[in-house]
Amino acid sequence: MVKVAVIGGTGYAGADLVRVLSAHPHVELSMITSLQYAGQPFSDVYPAMAGIVSLTCQAFSEEAVSEAADLIFTALPHKASMGVVPGLIHRGKRVIDLSADFRFKEPALYEAWYEPHEAKDLLKTAVYGLPELYFDEIQKASLVGNPGCYPTSVLLPLLPLIKAPFIDCDSIIADSKSGTSGAGRSVSLATHFCEVNEAFKAYKVAEHRHNPEMDEILSHFTGRTIQVTFTPHLVPMTRGMLTTIYVGLKENIPTHDIASRLDSFYADKPFVRIYPRGRFPNTIYVKGTNYCDIGFQVAEGTKRLVLISVIDNLVKGASGQAVQNMNIMLGLPQTAGLDQPPFLL
Amino acid sequence: MVKVAVIGGTGYAGADLVRVLSAHPHVELSMITSLQYAGQPFSDVYPAMAGIVSLTCQAFSEEAVSEAADLIFTALPHKASMGVVPGLIHRGKRVIDLSADFRFKEPALYEAWYEPHEAKDLLKTAVYGLPELYFDEIQKASLVGNPGCYPTSVLLPLLPLIKAPFIDCDSIIADSKSGTSGAGRSVSLATHFCEVNEAFKAYKVAEHRHNPEMDEILSHFTGRTIQVTFTPHLVPMTRGMLTTIYVGLKENIPTHDIASRLDSFYADKPFVRIYPRGRFPNTIYVKGTNYCDIGFQVAEGTKRLVLISVIDNLVKGASGQAVQNMNIMLGLPQTAGLDQPPFLL
Amino acid sequence: MVKVAVIGGTGYAGADLVRVLSAHPHVELSMITSLQYAGQPFSDVYPAMAGIVSLTCQAFSEEAVSEAADLIFTALPHKASMGVVPGLIHRGKRVIDLSADFRFKEPALYEAWYEPHEAKDLLKTAVYGLPELYFDEIQKASLVGNPGCYPTSVLLPLLPLIKAPFIDCDSIIADSKSGTSGAGRSVSLATHFCEVNEAFKAYKVAEHRHNPEMDEILSHFTGRTIQVTFTPHLVPMTRGMLTTIYVGLKENIPTHDIASRLDSFYADKPFVRIYPRGRFPNTIYVKGTNYCDIGFQVAEGTKRLVLISVIDNLVKGASGQAVQNMNIMLGLPQTAGLDQPPFLL
Amino acid sequence: MVKVAVIGGTGYAGADLVRVLSAHPHVELSMITSLQYAGQPFSDVYPAMAGIVSLTCQAFSEEAVSEAADLIFTALPHKASMGVVPGLIHRGKRVIDLSADFRFKEPALYEAWYEPHEAKDLLKTAVYGLPELYFDEIQKASLVGNPGCYPTSVLLPLLPLIKAPFIDCDSIIADSKSGTSGAGRSVSLATHFCEVNEAFKAYKVAEHRHNPEMDEILSHFTGRTIQVTFTPHLVPMTRGMLTTIYVGLKENIPTHDIASRLDSFYADKPFVRIYPRGRFPNTIYVKGTNYCDIGFQVAEGTKRLVLISVIDNLVKGASGQAVQNMNIMLGLPQTAGLDQPPFLL
Repeated sequence: MVKVAVIGGTGYAGADLVRVLSAHPHVELSMITSLQYAGQPFSDVYPAMAGIVSLTCQAFSEEAVSEAADLIFTALPHKASMGVVPGLIHRGKRVIDLSADFRFKEPALYEAWYEPHEAKDLLKTAVYGLPELYFDEIQKASLVGNPGCYPTSVLLPLLPLIKAPFIDCDSIIADSKSGTSGAGRSVSLATHFCEVNEAFKAYKVAEHRHNPEMDEILSHFTGRTIQVTFTPHLVPMTRGMLTTIYVGLKENIPTHDIASRLDSFYADKPFVRIYPRGRFPNTIYVKGTNYCDIGFQVAEGTKRLVLISVIDNLVKGASGQAVQNMNIMLGLPQTAGLDQPPFLL
Repeated sequence: MVKVAVIGGTGYAGADLVRVLSAHPHVELSMITSLQYAGQPFSDVYPAMAGIVSLTCQAFSEEAVSEAADLIFTALPHKASMGVVPGLIHRGKRVIDLSADFRFKEPALYEAWYEPHEAKDLLKTAVYGLPELYFDEIQKASLVGNPGCYPTSVLLPLLPLIKAPFIDCDSIIADSKSGTSGAGRSVSLATHFCEVNEAFKAYKVAEHRHNPEMDEILSHFTGRTIQVTFTPHLVPMTRGMLTTIYVGLKENIPTHDIASRLDSFYADKPFVRIYPRGRFPNTIYVKGTNYCDIGFQVAEGTKRLVLISVIDNLVKGASGQAVQNMNIMLGLPQTAGLDQPPFLL
Repeated sequence: MVKVAVIGGTGYAGADLVRVLSAHPHVELSMITSLQYAGQPFSDVYPAMAGIVSLTCQAFSEEAVSEAADLIFTALPHKASMGVVPGLIHRGKRVIDLSADFRFKEPALYEAWYEPHEAKDLLKTAVYGLPELYFDEIQKASLVGNPGCYPTSVLLPLLPLIKAPFIDCDSIIADSKSGTSGAGRSVSLATHFCEVNEAFKAYKVAEHRHNPEMDEILSHFTGRTIQVTFTPHLVPMTRGMLTTIYVGLKENIPTHDIASRLDSFYADKPFVRIYPRGRFPNTIYVKGTNYCDIGFQVAEGTKRLVLISVIDNLVKGASGQAVQNMNIMLGLPQTAGLDQPPFLL
Repeated sequence: MVKVAVIGGTGYAGADLVRVLSAHPHVELSMITSLQYAGQPFSDVYPAMAGIVSLTCQAFSEEAVSEAADLIFTALPHKASMGVVPGLIHRGKRVIDLSADFRFKEPALYEAWYEPHEAKDLLKTAVYGLPELYFDEIQKASLVGNPGCYPTSVLLPLLPLIKAPFIDCDSIIADSKSGTSGAGRSVSLATHFCEVNEAFKAYKVAEHRHNPEMDEILSHFTGRTIQVTFTPHLVPMTRGMLTTIYVGLKENIPTHDIASRLDSFYADKPFVRIYPRGRFPNTIYVKGTNYCDIGFQVAEGTKRLVLISVIDNLVKGASGQAVQNMNIMLGLPQTAGLDQPPFLL
């Protein structure tokens, strides 16, 4: 059993990692750290886990973590991550980082949207942890930057199609809708129950930090500059994300051309399910799972392709994708620990 | 006091009309009809109204309704409306119809998306009841086709801008999100609590019947053929609709050009509130009111304008807009009976 | 027009007061104070009110408030209230306080559950603002302690019955369920969206501060010591409170005895609606209104009476009851400004 | 691998059984029947299960089911169950029935609350499937009547205490709150999204069919007649049930007497977790799991014990408990297939 640790295990992404890892058949969760809850049993912070996880939250110590685990998940806010990851890497640990700190290839891009980067050298070797795109690189990686939830939901439907000759790459619009767990466990008026319940809003329109992240991957993948127009929205529910993508078609093409590109790209990928034209996924179909379900429609009159993707923002958008990356790094089946059936309701 | 009647007063749109009319200072609600609840007090169907509305639901009778009221709201399913409206009109009544039956100017368009039209002659005189666009025609109308909720949320932000030279009219995409009350009171699996709660989906992508309705008005208004790519989504909440509109800009233009067009178009319109660039409305800001709030952003890198509108789908999207039309037809202030403050939460 | 002010107008209870007062036909809202938002337009804090309330939030100043208004609502946390109310009273103002500071007749009881009381002399003249019980005293009061939401929902169904000979006064159990707006606008993990949504819990079982409040009023009303066993619960919704009350019956008595006591007690009270035996109210029937709806059932096998009451915790449980008290103090109809129809959904 | 079938596998309880069984390590789900969806792949009815369950729904045939499986779950409405269960039993199959048809020992009691019973002889051998009470009988049973969700939540906290000398057995009140999935998948106005959302109500007060069920088990267990006063309520959420129980104490007794009785009764039971006095469970702590969590408080002033229990109404209240019963019948560990960690949010 490989020993793993979760740094920052009491935020929502970290705790969801603890949930998934606690039932994983091939690894042992040996340490959870938490700045806020150091010294408290994890199951006092999350009583649901009483009798399931017996670990007590620790204060972070590079030395203690390195002794306790061989592969380490860092589920810290951005900037905090770049403070702890280099030390762990230098001790020879493999790290999967859930913050934005190691997702970008281009330091200047990170710095334009976030802040000064203090571990630029690691960006060169860090791998963007989207297994459907970078499986081989992830296998060998020592540091994986786990993708943002929005980019995951935008990239997966676009990757099979964006290189097709009939796609207008300058026309991509992504309209995303996310459940509120994406905002994390830190309290704020914006996530206060009565402000979210029975309310729907857009935020950071064309200004969200996940926008340059998806642009960089798409540009790298296609070899040309791609800029997505991206609008995130907040849905009054806990888990789930749906993204509606609009792409201009240079010509109206047969449905089966689109279907077959999607199908063949994902033929051997266990976590992506493709729907036939005209059937659309619902976030509840993937709730609690690592699936990304994708549907599509062609608006022939306006020559636009509409792609709809759904993920559980906490799982394929965070903890599940991180465990999928771990499985790949450790040579385990991708689905190990990630095969519990979805809740139906 | 003008006497008014609501035909089909126990569906959600009809009942919301009853709610608004029951507190209207200048009209008297003299009759409610209901196929399903004829003979039952309205307050047995909606116990919230005990002590407020004392009317008993009647079976529909053209004669009885015509005796009871001078202005009549028909809140029936489409097709049912075209069965009763002609008779009322021929008796000299003024009618505001909340179905789709009298919204289209072009019978063939209606028939392509709905079914054979049995009162085509009335389409010639019927007025599309969007007061911000057709105030003068509504004043004189005997028959008003009350707009659909989605078209209302799409048209109001677009009208001030669509004739501007910098707008690419072939690029319009409308991504709408609606609360579940828009699906009405008829039970179905699609509106069963456990199927909607904690779930988010798109439906009828590029195939919704409100699409040709918005296209016809935009085309008529601009004098050219406009086709919107339109996707509706279902939000797990009761009231509220938010539409995100993407429009290509032929050139990047100053913010104040957009702001001033929006501001001046709505300067004297009591129910539209414009936000400064970068501030966006939330459906909860207009809950229970007849307001449409509009915000915008310019995505300069991709030369797109993003417009965000919110309405209460049952009020500005149905009952409130109908009462606003009535006020105009009767020469009352537009806001009569529609000025109760919004719920804040 | 009497001028009124709201001290602490940006919390949920205060803001709901602003909402109700903004549409009141007989008073003018002349000042809103807010510690947190002093200097900002109220409609920046609550954008829903743009175009409706044009006041800017002020810092509190006894002098300025006293100049601006003749009747003052204090919607502050407990303890903060007792700091500002005495000064306003000494300047001859009439005050309706929404905190717990002036609800108790017995200072020792307040101090046992809250903290040292610094204005004990005012407790002697303060009137408990439950209009259905203390109408006459409220008319003449200079200081009204507006009841807690839970006590309102417990007292209204019990008052007509508790003096009846068939009631076992030692057997009263109140099981209350409250929407989350009752917890106010201050952020906390307990009111974070993802902690409340799709969750249901009890809290402060047999230890809630509203327990001694209801006990004192019931004891005072009956002339004997009454102790209610009281459990509050949190419901994943914004507005609404339902209380289920269990009372032992010394004998099984005819339904009409219970019905007639309820009916006659509330015959001339405009905000209480009594249901026939076996029909039960739903919180949504009173949403946004000042109503309290009451239903009942007799469990004959176990000789227990079950009473069900519903209120909107923010309206009859706070702002609406405060305005009802104001109306009584000013000699206005009780329903002035409180007669807008309920939302049906 | 034992082969099992689910009769009525597309209702919520049946489908949740399919979900749990699809991941069970020791049984093979070999058939799903459905009246409504016969001939359709299960994953067309529940798209969440695409790629996980490949079975097609069958029409029910006693012969086909008996060939396909050795242990059969019947998840049919009451009355329908008693039509199919006898035939399966006579063919030597073991059956776990999720309806009410085989829960009662006393046919007259069933008939007083339901309808004429057509398989009374089977009632003599059927075992009430509450494993924490009837483990031994379940091991040997050929027919198990799986308990109702409300009785499960009432019985588990009461069983360890009800025989204690300090308990007043005539004083028991159970106030239950259930998520909406308990109402099943059949559409109705009562379960229409907009009727449930942002609403809270009591229903069938002192008249619910689960009341005699819990009374019979408690009476049988104690050897005296017990009658609970029982009120169910509907919570605007999908999964979860919380029951608040009030019990009179003949004397105030030390906390540890209560705690130790709860602890020792459940010491070796894997699915019941006891909380220390004053800490209370939340339905979200058991969401998606087979746990029942129990907390308690003593209201010393009124000499009442308050017990709080939570379950997932679909799991411990239906599918999970059924699988627990199956595990016991098959000699498997009770937790087999039921050990997936709870969702934390």
